[in-house]
Amino acid sequence: MTDWTRPCPVPSEEHAEAARCRQASLTKPNGALGRLESIAIELAALQRTERPRADRVEIIVFAGDHGVTSRSVSAYPSTVTIEMMRNFTAGGAAISVLARTLGARLEVIDAGSFATEPIPGVITDKPRAGTRDFLREPALTEEEVAFALSAGVRAIARSSERRPDLIVLGEMGIGNTTSAAAMTSAMLGIPPAEVVGPGTGLDEAGVARKTAVVAEALALHRLMGAKASPWAALQFVGGLEIAALTGAIIASAQQSIPILVDGFIVSVAALAACRINASVRPWLLFAHRSAERGHAAVLAALQAEPILDLGLRLGEGSGAAIAVPILRMACALHNEMATFDEASVSGRMV
Amino acid sequence: MTDWTRPCPVPSEEHAEAARCRQASLTKPNGALGRLESIAIELAALQRTERPRADRVEIIVFAGDHGVTSRSVSAYPSTVTIEMMRNFTAGGAAISVLARTLGARLEVIDAGSFATEPIPGVITDKPRAGTRDFLREPALTEEEVAFALSAGVRAIARSSERRPDLIVLGEMGIGNTTSAAAMTSAMLGIPPAEVVGPGTGLDEAGVARKTAVVAEALALHRLMGAKASPWAALQFVGGLEIAALTGAIIASAQQSIPILVDGFIVSVAALAACRINASVRPWLLFAHRSAERGHAAVLAALQAEPILDLGLRLGEGSGAAIAVPILRMACALHNEMATFDEASVSGRMV
Repeated sequence: MTDWTRPCPVPSEEHAEAARCRQASLTKPNGALGRLESIAIELAALQRTERPRADRVEIIVFAGDHGVTSRSVSAYPSTVTIEMMRNFTAGGAAISVLARTLGARLEVIDAGSFATEPIPGVITDKPRAGTRDFLREPALTEEEVAFALSAGVRAIARSSERRPDLIVLGEMGIGNTTSAAAMTSAMLGIPPAEVVGPGTGLDEAGVARKTAVVAEALALHRLMGAKASPWAALQFVGGLEIAALTGAIIASAQQSIPILVDGFIVSVAALAACRINASVRPWLLFAHRSAERGHAAVLAALQAEPILDLGLRLGEGSGAAIAVPILRMACALHNEMATFDEASVSGRMV
Repeated sequence: MTDWTRPCPVPSEEHAEAARCRQASLTKPNGALGRLESIAIELAALQRTERPRADRVEIIVFAGDHGVTSRSVSAYPSTVTIEMMRNFTAGGAAISVLARTLGARLEVIDAGSFATEPIPGVITDKPRAGTRDFLREPALTEEEVAFALSAGVRAIARSSERRPDLIVLGEMGIGNTTSAAAMTSAMLGIPPAEVVGPGTGLDEAGVARKTAVVAEALALHRLMGAKASPWAALQFVGGLEIAALTGAIIASAQQSIPILVDGFIVSVAALAACRINASVRPWLLFAHRSAERGHAAVLAALQAEPILDLGLRLGEGSGAAIAVPILRMACALHNEMATFDEASVSGRMV
């Protein structure tokens, strides 16, 4: 049984300082590579190395379904969750193409879809098929939340055997922006209207309906206004894939594997993980700013400044995968550029 | 002799429309890949193809020196321009590392440095060694500007033989943010204080001195306040590498090769190119928003919204090189994702 609050290792200030010195010695004005310098320094500190790397990347996508989809909160039917898992393994989805492009391994886990039998190529690891409709009852039991968190731990245990430089986490689940918005509203104590967005593409009336659903659910479970615990948020309005992500994030950080966080859903799981265990935070790199409305509030709560802002709102871990080459180039520049001395280039005059 | 105003080919609306239809058929909510969708559509239209590519990339870096460096407008001595050209070819500079990482060919051209003899591995193609001090006289003669523009054309002629999918242009030149700021102020009719920045790292007093230098030069050449022609800007306060970039941009666009524009200096050359020949504009993709102050005004004048915003301020074409993987992933997603029909995934309900 995982101890969720066991402290994660502290990033190495010694390696961060060595990396800062190296950056200052490379043939460029200090700071001129902007964010790429800070990424290299951050990875050096996390990986406790002078030569940070982002070569070996494991992508893990957790899928789950949501009882609340019976309330017309998504533009797509729930069957899409299962259909997309097949698409992931067949190689036709965005994350499949990106994994190939990056030379990264892609693992797909059914952490709680409505599927009643295993899907070829997908690891099934779930306590039940889909959550309950949280407009009527709690989405999950305490035991189901614990099972899903542990599914995340098991996924990290499998991936960590291949000693990745970093982990990319993604998700698939029709209805999960509704769950994530409810969790955000509950954990941060902010009104649903400030975090509910169109998800896969609701129109204005759809967003209004979705906002009303979230508000009603928060009232029903007495989560409105106050800052709910991450445990309550996961159990009452959460999702199995979101709980699995939360467990995976904590386990990855506890094992010193940096996590490249994708968009809104994964960030909500990251928020829950940090609320359960604050020492997780330094292990998170934020890949992109999602176009989905609630992401901004979650990023602000985590004091996170994402690397990219490309109007993405797909999920699947796609935004994190798209940021991987930036990390790789940051590492290549850090490791391979010549110093002023090596290249006999003159330094600053003043 | 190049006809600088010869119209560039018009991007294919037919291919853009086909690409938009394909994007709408892929297994994702339409628009969910944000900027990556528009990049793929844009490249499809420019390359007149159903399968846009950013695989074959040529990087061309033009170097030049500036007479105005005698006025203490840079944190680094002029000798760095030559030293960095050696660093480019030795493989130790940022752009060298990025070119290797991307599998891109890197060509370095001495378009006007103070070097008095050829540098091994560098193509020398210049009318003179460095510009004149534009605080005393015009930086260049009309003939020198024409020569430098043609050096840009010659570079594109060499690169185009390898049929690149796109061209990355970069520059090196101690003092060239001063020249670029003066050109921006002249072409856009905005005060020097709004476009002069720290360049490679001037302190506040240095920026004030640099601003005064630009203001005095614009007054001397009667370029203050009004919107100067690109020709006047290039001749009176320009640089040989900036003129070469301008010629390269026009030639590349006339030959239907998309240009990935780097930061402040290359954007100023792009502004001059578009002022000389407005049909150049659709051939420009803007890679990143530089931390250098004047870039914002140039981007606004070109109605350009760059892909990345990473606080870069190095030059060399490094920011454009860093954006290349984004273009490659946009193309891979466009070309390789499955459609809803192919993957048997359900479409929208509403």
